[in-house]
Amino acid sequence: MSSVNFKLDKRLTNDGILLGYLHWVGTKNELSGEASILLLMNNAEIPWFVIVPIGVTAIDIDELDEKQQSQLLKEVNVLSGFLKSHYSVDKINFASIGNIVKQMHFHLVARTEQDGCWPGVVWGITAKIKYTRQQVENLTTLLNKEISFFKPN
Amino acid sequence: MSSVNFKLDKRLTNDGILLGYLHWVGTKNELSGEASILLLMNNAEIPWFVIVPIGVTAIDIDELDEKQQSQLLKEVNVLSGFLKSHYSVDKINFASIGNIVKQMHFHLVARTEQDGCWPGVVWGITAKIKYTRQQVENLTTLLNKEISFFKPN
Repeated sequence: MSSVNFKLDKRLTNDGILLGYLHWVGTKNELSGEASILLLMNNAEIPWFVIVPIGVTAIDIDELDEKQQSQLLKEVNVLSGFLKSHYSVDKINFASIGNIVKQMHFHLVARTEQDGCWPGVVWGITAKIKYTRQQVENLTTLLNKEISFFKPN
Repeated sequence: MSSVNFKLDKRLTNDGILLGYLHWVGTKNELSGEASILLLMNNAEIPWFVIVPIGVTAIDIDELDEKQQSQLLKEVNVLSGFLKSHYSVDKINFASIGNIVKQMHFHLVARTEQDGCWPGVVWGITAKIKYTRQQVENLTTLLNKEISFFKPN
């Protein structure tokens, strides 16, 4: 299923900004269709990605097939490295929760001991500061430059 | 590193009960050393496993190597299936947080819309009901019967 036919749950786009797409990478390093949608939670105090696998109707991580799990882990590895390169990170929080929004999505959050909810978890908090358009553009440019299988929206 | 030399963080064993070990499985389905420790959070209202990869000094999921990530996903898949077989499950919550206990561990939680913290997350809550010894023994027996790479403590 391509992203064209895939409908993001509105509650994800209410809280998050669509940055772009993470593509499948073939054996010769060529990109094929989109594997996942990459969102940024609109909370400028906590770097927080949301990864939404495209075309998945399952709701739990164990229901992804082997190829999808492998793609997910690749995305998690590369995006975690990206977060660690560009932000102060004391701990990466990674989670599949989805009690409220059932559409499968994964949280990847760069936490620091100085952030407002440390050492608690980030779910359920309200963002006090939103990103500016320029900040989102800069982040998207950086992702596009550094992650070969990311394509901006 | 074997489990003999591996020291579990005391805060994990304060909240959790050591059920046993999840083993590496070779190509001929033979078991080798322990890959992970399996704990049960001592909250009889919410089926909640904690998986602790053995011998890992890294703290974030992206720092596991490919073999370790693959083992982790196998454990998550099989244990999620186990939870879905034996409990009422509306959503599996899977997470690597570790803001307080840095020793790498993963939460695998069977959530239902009837549990006391639905739809919120389980982290930070206090267990109201603990497991009896018999309940833990029964669960361990069932895991041992159904999961080939699980060995009781």
